[in-house]
Amino acid sequence: MTTSSINFFFTGEALQFTLSAIDLAIDEDGPDLTSNAVFAPEQRLKAQIVAKEDTIVCGLTYVRYIMDRVIERDPQPAGFDDYTVETFAADGDRVSNGSLVVRLEASARRLLKAERIILNFMTHLSGISNLTARYAAALEGSGTRLLDTRKTLPGLRYPEKYAVIIGGGLNHRRNLAEMLMLKDNHIDLAGSITAAVERLRTAYAPCPPIEVECRTVADVQEAVSCSVDRIMLDNMDAAGLAEALPYIPAHIETEASGGVTLETIRTLADASGRKLDYISVGRLTHSAPSADFSMRISE
Amino acid sequence: MTTSSINFFFTGEALQFTLSAIDLAIDEDGPDLTSNAVFAPEQRLKAQIVAKEDTIVCGLTYVRYIMDRVIERDPQPAGFDDYTVETFAADGDRVSNGSLVVRLEASARRLLKAERIILNFMTHLSGISNLTARYAAALEGSGTRLLDTRKTLPGLRYPEKYAVIIGGGLNHRRNLAEMLMLKDNHIDLAGSITAAVERLRTAYAPCPPIEVECRTVADVQEAVSCSVDRIMLDNMDAAGLAEALPYIPAHIETEASGGVTLETIRTLADASGRKLDYISVGRLTHSAPSADFSMRISE
Amino acid sequence: MTTSSINFFFTGEALQFTLSAIDLAIDEDGPDLTSNAVFAPEQRLKAQIVAKEDTIVCGLTYVRYIMDRVIERDPQPAGFDDYTVETFAADGDRVSNGSLVVRLEASARRLLKAERIILNFMTHLSGISNLTARYAAALEGSGTRLLDTRKTLPGLRYPEKYAVIIGGGLNHRRNLAEMLMLKDNHIDLAGSITAAVERLRTAYAPCPPIEVECRTVADVQEAVSCSVDRIMLDNMDAAGLAEALPYIPAHIETEASGGVTLETIRTLADASGRKLDYISVGRLTHSAPSADFSMRISE
Amino acid sequence: MTTSSINFFFTGEALQFTLSAIDLAIDEDGPDLTSNAVFAPEQRLKAQIVAKEDTIVCGLTYVRYIMDRVIERDPQPAGFDDYTVETFAADGDRVSNGSLVVRLEASARRLLKAERIILNFMTHLSGISNLTARYAAALEGSGTRLLDTRKTLPGLRYPEKYAVIIGGGLNHRRNLAEMLMLKDNHIDLAGSITAAVERLRTAYAPCPPIEVECRTVADVQEAVSCSVDRIMLDNMDAAGLAEALPYIPAHIETEASGGVTLETIRTLADASGRKLDYISVGRLTHSAPSADFSMRISE
Amino acid sequence: MTTSSINFFFTGEALQFTLSAIDLAIDEDGPDLTSNAVFAPEQRLKAQIVAKEDTIVCGLTYVRYIMDRVIERDPQPAGFDDYTVETFAADGDRVSNGSLVVRLEASARRLLKAERIILNFMTHLSGISNLTARYAAALEGSGTRLLDTRKTLPGLRYPEKYAVIIGGGLNHRRNLAEMLMLKDNHIDLAGSITAAVERLRTAYAPCPPIEVECRTVADVQEAVSCSVDRIMLDNMDAAGLAEALPYIPAHIETEASGGVTLETIRTLADASGRKLDYISVGRLTHSAPSADFSMRISE
Amino acid sequence: MTTSSINFFFTGEALQFTLSAIDLAIDEDGPDLTSNAVFAPEQRLKAQIVAKEDTIVCGLTYVRYIMDRVIERDPQPAGFDDYTVETFAADGDRVSNGSLVVRLEASARRLLKAERIILNFMTHLSGISNLTARYAAALEGSGTRLLDTRKTLPGLRYPEKYAVIIGGGLNHRRNLAEMLMLKDNHIDLAGSITAAVERLRTAYAPCPPIEVECRTVADVQEAVSCSVDRIMLDNMDAAGLAEALPYIPAHIETEASGGVTLETIRTLADASGRKLDYISVGRLTHSAPSADFSMRISE
Repeated sequence: MTTSSINFFFTGEALQFTLSAIDLAIDEDGPDLTSNAVFAPEQRLKAQIVAKEDTIVCGLTYVRYIMDRVIERDPQPAGFDDYTVETFAADGDRVSNGSLVVRLEASARRLLKAERIILNFMTHLSGISNLTARYAAALEGSGTRLLDTRKTLPGLRYPEKYAVIIGGGLNHRRNLAEMLMLKDNHIDLAGSITAAVERLRTAYAPCPPIEVECRTVADVQEAVSCSVDRIMLDNMDAAGLAEALPYIPAHIETEASGGVTLETIRTLADASGRKLDYISVGRLTHSAPSADFSMRISE
Repeated sequence: MTTSSINFFFTGEALQFTLSAIDLAIDEDGPDLTSNAVFAPEQRLKAQIVAKEDTIVCGLTYVRYIMDRVIERDPQPAGFDDYTVETFAADGDRVSNGSLVVRLEASARRLLKAERIILNFMTHLSGISNLTARYAAALEGSGTRLLDTRKTLPGLRYPEKYAVIIGGGLNHRRNLAEMLMLKDNHIDLAGSITAAVERLRTAYAPCPPIEVECRTVADVQEAVSCSVDRIMLDNMDAAGLAEALPYIPAHIETEASGGVTLETIRTLADASGRKLDYISVGRLTHSAPSADFSMRISE
Repeated sequence: MTTSSINFFFTGEALQFTLSAIDLAIDEDGPDLTSNAVFAPEQRLKAQIVAKEDTIVCGLTYVRYIMDRVIERDPQPAGFDDYTVETFAADGDRVSNGSLVVRLEASARRLLKAERIILNFMTHLSGISNLTARYAAALEGSGTRLLDTRKTLPGLRYPEKYAVIIGGGLNHRRNLAEMLMLKDNHIDLAGSITAAVERLRTAYAPCPPIEVECRTVADVQEAVSCSVDRIMLDNMDAAGLAEALPYIPAHIETEASGGVTLETIRTLADASGRKLDYISVGRLTHSAPSADFSMRISE
Repeated sequence: MTTSSINFFFTGEALQFTLSAIDLAIDEDGPDLTSNAVFAPEQRLKAQIVAKEDTIVCGLTYVRYIMDRVIERDPQPAGFDDYTVETFAADGDRVSNGSLVVRLEASARRLLKAERIILNFMTHLSGISNLTARYAAALEGSGTRLLDTRKTLPGLRYPEKYAVIIGGGLNHRRNLAEMLMLKDNHIDLAGSITAAVERLRTAYAPCPPIEVECRTVADVQEAVSCSVDRIMLDNMDAAGLAEALPYIPAHIETEASGGVTLETIRTLADASGRKLDYISVGRLTHSAPSADFSMRISE
Repeated sequence: MTTSSINFFFTGEALQFTLSAIDLAIDEDGPDLTSNAVFAPEQRLKAQIVAKEDTIVCGLTYVRYIMDRVIERDPQPAGFDDYTVETFAADGDRVSNGSLVVRLEASARRLLKAERIILNFMTHLSGISNLTARYAAALEGSGTRLLDTRKTLPGLRYPEKYAVIIGGGLNHRRNLAEMLMLKDNHIDLAGSITAAVERLRTAYAPCPPIEVECRTVADVQEAVSCSVDRIMLDNMDAAGLAEALPYIPAHIETEASGGVTLETIRTLADASGRKLDYISVGRLTHSAPSADFSMRISE
Repeated sequence: MTTSSINFFFTGEALQFTLSAIDLAIDEDGPDLTSNAVFAPEQRLKAQIVAKEDTIVCGLTYVRYIMDRVIERDPQPAGFDDYTVETFAADGDRVSNGSLVVRLEASARRLLKAERIILNFMTHLSGISNLTARYAAALEGSGTRLLDTRKTLPGLRYPEKYAVIIGGGLNHRRNLAEMLMLKDNHIDLAGSITAAVERLRTAYAPCPPIEVECRTVADVQEAVSCSVDRIMLDNMDAAGLAEALPYIPAHIETEASGGVTLETIRTLADASGRKLDYISVGRLTHSAPSADFSMRISE
C-alpha cells in the first residue's frame, strides 16, 4: 500500500460517496434526545478510543470527517463547534489490545452523537483489514496479488475498498464504469467475445480497460485474440488454471475468481503454466467479523 | 415475528432510510457501461436467484424496491421499464441449498445493473437472520428475549434491524430518539440518576421510554425509585445478575448487555432472582458472515 | 417553562424544521430588487425592533438564525456578511409599548431582506404566547396544565409549539410519531381498544406512550385495563368529566379536549372526582391575533 | 375575483411555493405510527369534511395536491395509492354550518396522515377569506379596492394571498421582485426620490412597476414628477389624504396604508380630493381567526 | 453600461442561476484523476491568464465564484483551500493580444480542476461581448439601442446576458416572468389584442410591463389603444417600420426584431417616422465565436 | 457514427448531465406568465419545427426529454399532460431549407414554455454538427480521425459532444476521469514522464488510458518507453509531426492538437512518417454558429 493508492479514497467522487454514507449514518441514528436534554451546549467532554484486541487499525482517517458532518447535519446552538482529534496510530498500523488510538475533545452533545458512528466505521473497517491481511499473508512470496470484489455492503463500497488496501490487498474495479467486464450474457447476446469487445470499443473512445470472464480454453484463446486487458478464469481449480494460463501472453493480466478460501488460495497462486497475476476474494468485504474498539468518555 | 413488527420497516421513515441506502448503492456502482454498450434498450433477460446453502431468506421484500429505484436513478431510454418479480419463498423462510427463491424478468440493462445490489442486500441480511436464529435458539424456553443493538453498519441500520426480526430477535431502540438511555456520563454530569431522569421528563412531554445503564445495586435502587421503563445491567455475569435482579419490580423491564456470546447467553438468561426480560447482542449485526445466493441469467 | 423544555426547540429535528420554514419564507419573498439596486454591497444600516403594544416577546431567539439563512440563501457579493444582534429582552419577557427589544447592524441589502421575515415571525409567535398566557392564567392554581394541539399552521408546527411554551403552556405530541393516539377509527377497525393497543405494542418495541380517546365510561374502563399512558376525555363538559374521571387511577394521565374556551376552561379543570391533568386548546395556535412590533431603520 | 386572478396561484412559481409548504407540513408531522400499525395497507376509509359554522370556503382546491404529496412523501407499500375527491362546494362559496363540502375515499393510512394537514389549510385560509370579506364589504360602492400586504405567515405567502382573492380582496406585491417599493431608507441613501427612481430604471430594463412611500406633499410632488406607477400614502388619516391626493394625476395609482381597521377603512376611502385606488390591510393575513371545519371518518 | 445594470447579475436569482451553471460545469468534468494522483494536497501552483488576441474581457468577475464552487464541490483533504486572485483588467476593458489579465495562486489540484472551467466561461463570454460591441458600434449616434433575445444557450442565460451588457448592449426580458409578451397565438386564442391585454391585467396586479408583437398597422393601432408598454415590430424592413412607427406615441417603446444583421441594422435604426427605441438581435448570444485566452501554469 | 457510440449519450451519467442542463434551461426561463394567463389549462396547440436553411439536424432526440422535464418542473393543474411528438427526420440527417422536422401537439402552456428551450438546443447543436461535418470532410480519405476537446460551453459538455458524433467526429475524453492526461505541470512536479506515469498506475488499478502531451522528440521517446496509450503532439506543424511520429510504434495512438483550422487540418493529417490517428479541434464546440430552425404554432 502506498500513499498514492490511499489518496484515491480521499479525493473526488470516492470521498463524496464516503461522506454520503457518513451522512446517512448520522441521519438514521436520529437526534440524540438524551444528550440534548442532559448536556448544555457549552458542556465539553473528552473521549479515548482504545483497541480491545490485537488488530490492524482502519478508519482513523474518517474521524475528522465524521465530526465535521455531525456538526453540519445535527443542528445545535452556534458557538461550540470546535473540537480536537489527536491520533496515536495511523490506518494500517497493528496495535495490541489496550492501545490508545485516538483522543477526542468536543462538545458533549456532538461527541456522544458521533460516538457510535465512529465506532461502527472503525470496527467494521478494521475487521476487513484484518481478514484481508490474513489472505494477503497466504499469498506472500507467490507473486500473485489479492483483489477484492464488488460484493461490498450497500453504500459502503468505498470505505470497504479502502480497508482492503489498508489490509494489504488491491482493488478490483470499484464500479461498473472504470473497467468493462464481459460475462456470459454479454457474450451470448453479442454473438461472440470478439463481437462484444467490438461493441465496447465502438461505444467508448477512449475505452476503459476490458476484462473477459472465461470458462474454457476456447474462450481464453478468443479473448487473447482481441487483446483484452485482463482475463478472468472463473471458478477453476489449480488444474484448470494450469491448463488455461499458458495460452495467455504476458501483457494480458490474469485473474482467478470464485469460491476462494484461506485453504485454497495458495494452491491457486502456485498453479503452473504462467504467473497468475490476481486472485479475487468476495469474503474480504462481505463476511469479515468486526474488530473490537471502545470509547471511554470523561469530563 | 408478526406482520405488525415487520410492517414497521415498510412504512414511513424506516422505509425512507432503506431507500436511501438503496440509492447510495445504486449510485456508488456507477453506470453499467458494459451492459449499456452491449444490450439494446429493448433487450430483455430473465434471472433466477438461488440459495447456495441452507439458509433463512431475508431481503426478498427489497427486490421490487431495488428494481424501482434502479429505474428511477439510472437514466435509460423510455418505454422499457416494466419488469416482473415472482417469489418462491418469503422473508423468514428456511430454504435448502439449490432452492429457487425469486424469478425476475426485465430489460437487460436494468437487470444487470440491479443484480449485484440485490445480491449484496440478500446475502448480508440473510446472514444476519441466520446468526440471530442461532442466538434465539439458545434462549428458547427461557422466557428471555433476544435484542440487537445500535452496532449496525453505517447506513444499514433499518434493513439490518429488519433482518434481526426475521431471524427471530427483537429490536432495541432503532435510533437516539425513540428511547432515552442514560449512561455514566449523563448521570455524572446531571449529578445523579434522579436528576438526570428529571431533566429528561422536563424536556420531553410526552416523554419517550427511559432506560438506565446500571453497574451497581445502588444504581439499580435509584433507577427503580425513579420508575424508569427499563434497567440495563451492564457487563454482569450470572452471579452479578442474580444479585441485582431482585431489586427490580416486575413492571420495570430488565436487560443484560455486554460481551454476550453463544456460549454465555443461556447462563445469563437463567440467572436466578427474577426473570431477565432481554439480552442484547452486538454481533448479530456487526459480525454476521453473509449467506450465499447467486443469480442465474438467461434470455 | 424551563431551560430544558426550551432547549428542545433549538436542537436536532425541531430546529431543522424551523430552519426549513425560515428558508421557505426567504425564498417566497424573492430577491429584494429595490434594495439591490439602491444600496451598494458595502452600505450598512442599523435597525431597532420596538414593541408597539404591551406584549410577551417571542421569536427573538430566531433573529440570528434568520440573519444566517438570509446570508446563505440570498446571493450577494462576498465580504460584507458580518452583522451584530443586540437583545434587550428575552423570549418570555413581558415588555411595554415602546420598548426596544433588539438592535441590529448589517449590510443594507441583507437587513432589508430579513426585515419582514423577522417581523412576521415575531408578531405571529408573540401573539400565540399572549393568548396562551391568558388561558394559562385561567388555570392558575387548579393543578391542571394547559396543552396545545396539532392544529398549527402548515410548516410552522415547531416555532408555534415553542411560542406555547414561552406563553406558559405545555406541548401535546408534536408529531404523529412521538405519542400514539387511538381514535374511533383505529379502535373500530381493530375491534376493540384492547386489540388496538396490542397491535401498537407488537409493532413498536420500545413503544412510544399511548393515549386513547374515550367517549364513554366503558371506553375509559377498557383503556384503564390496558394500562395506557393517557386517556383523552373527548368533548365532555364538567358533569361528563366528573362521571368519567373516578375510573382512572392516578398513574394514568387524564386530558380534556374539544371546544374549550376562555369561558369554560376553569370549570373543566375544577370538575370533581379526580384531578384532571391536562386541558388541550386548539385555538392557541390556529387563531391567535398577532402582536405588534415594528422595525426602525437608520444609517 | 375572476378565473384569471385565481389561475395565478395554480401555475408556476406560486404553485411551487404552495407545494413546498405542503411538503413541510407533511414532514413536520412525522410518520403516522398509530395508523401504520393499526391499518393494513389495503384498508380503505371514507371521510367527509363538514363546515362547523357559516363560512366562506377556501382551500378545497388544495385537497388533491395534499393527497398527491402525501402519497409521494410518506413511503407505504405500493399498489394502494388511488383515491377519490368529490367536492360539494368551490373556493369562494359561502356555506352554512353543517354543510358537507368534500368527500374523500382513500387508503386508511394516507387518509389519516392527510387529515390534519387538509384541515389546517382549510380552517386557516377560510378564516382569512372571512375576514377579507368583512373589510371588502366595508368598502362596497366606494370605488376603493382592498389590498393585502407582505405581513403573511412565514412559508404561507401564496396560499394566504389566494385566500385574500377568494375573500374578495386584491393582492399587493407578492414578493420583493414583482414590484419595486421605495421607502425612507432607499430615498435617504440615494439622496432623493428622483435619484432612487433613476437607479431602479437603470438597473432593470424592462423595469417592474415602481411604488413610492410618501409622507408629505413634497414627497408626493417629487414622486409624481418621476411618473412612478403608484404612490403609497403612509399612515395618513382622511384629512391627510384629502390634502395629498389632489397632487396625484389619474394615471398614477394611489394607496393608503398603515393601521387601518374595520372602523376606519370607509372614512379613508371616502377622503375627498381624488379617488383613492387602494387601501392595504395587514391584519387580513396576520390576525384572521380560523374558520371551523371537521372531518368525519367511516369505513 | 453602468454599475447598476451590472449589479443585477451579481445578486439574487441571477447570481443563483450563474452558480448553478458553474456547478454543472464542475460536475460534468468529473474528478481530476490525473492531478489528484500526481499532486499532493499541499502542492501549490501559480497561473496567468493571458489574452491571445485583441479582445474585450468578460468573465473575470466569475473567477472567484468558480474557485469557491470548485472548493465546495470537489472533495479534497481539508486545510489547503486558500487561494489568491489578482486581476489586471476589468470586465469591459479592451486588451491587446498578450495582455496578462489575471494571476491565480492555489493548490495544484484545485487550480487544474478550475482551469478549463474558467477558460470556457471567459472565452465564450468575451466572444459575446466582442460581437455585441460590433453591433452596438453600428448603431452609434442613431439613438436606437441594441437588445439581446432569449436565444441563449441552455443554462447560460444570465452569464450571456451579462456579456451583452459588458459589450455595450442592453437586455431584453431575461425570462418569461419579468415582461409579458403577446404573440400571434395568444392574441388569436383571446380573440383580440385588447382581450389578451385584459386577461394579463386581470391576472397580475401589479402587472409586469406588456409588449405586443405587431405585424400590421391595424395591430399597432389596437396595441396603442391598450396603452401597452412596448410594441415589437416583427420582421419589418425600413419601409415597413416607416409606415408603422408614426402610429406609436412617444410614451410607448418601439422595438424592431427579426433577421437583423450587421449589414441591415443601421438602415432599420434610421427608418423615418419616429425614433425606433430598440433593435433586438439573436445572434449576439447564439452565434458569437469565442475569444482566445490561455492559462500558463508554473510552480 | 454508429448506434453504439450514440447510445452512450442516452444512458447513465451522460444522460443525467443533459437532463440537468435541460432543467437549468427550464428554470432560468421562469414561469411563462403570459401563456399562463391567456390559455386555460385544457387549451391545446400544435407546432411544427422547420429548418430555415440547409443543415444537419441535431437535437431532435432531446425533444421528448425537454417535454417530459417541462411537465415535471413547471407546475400546472393536473390532467392535461399528454403530448405527441412526430419526427420527420433523425439526428444526423441533412435536410434542406423549409423541411418539416418535427410536429408537436400539447397543452398550450407547456408547448410555449418548451418552445424556446427546444429551439435553443436544436439550433446550437445542429450548428456544431454542421461545423464538425466540414472539418470531417477535410479529413476524408486521410485515415486520420477528427476529435473534439473539453473546450465546451459550461454545462453543455454532453449534448455538445453528442453533436460532434452526429456531425461525423469522435469524442476526446469527455471528462477528467475517463482518460488521464499528463501535461507539463504534472511531469515537472513528478520529475519525469516516467515518474508521473508510475504515480498514475499506482493510484488507479484498473488504470484508465493514459495520454501524454509531448513537445519534443525526447518527450516522445520517454512516453513510448512507458507504453502509454496515446501521445499528444502539441502545437506542431506538419514538419514537426513528421519528425516526431516515426518514434511512436503502431500500438500507441497519436494525436495532433493546437490551433488547427479548416485551412491547416489536412496538411497535418498528411504529415509523413507514420499515420496520425487523431486531430483534435477546439472550435467545433466553442465557436460554431447556430443553425436556423423555427417553430410554427397553430390551434
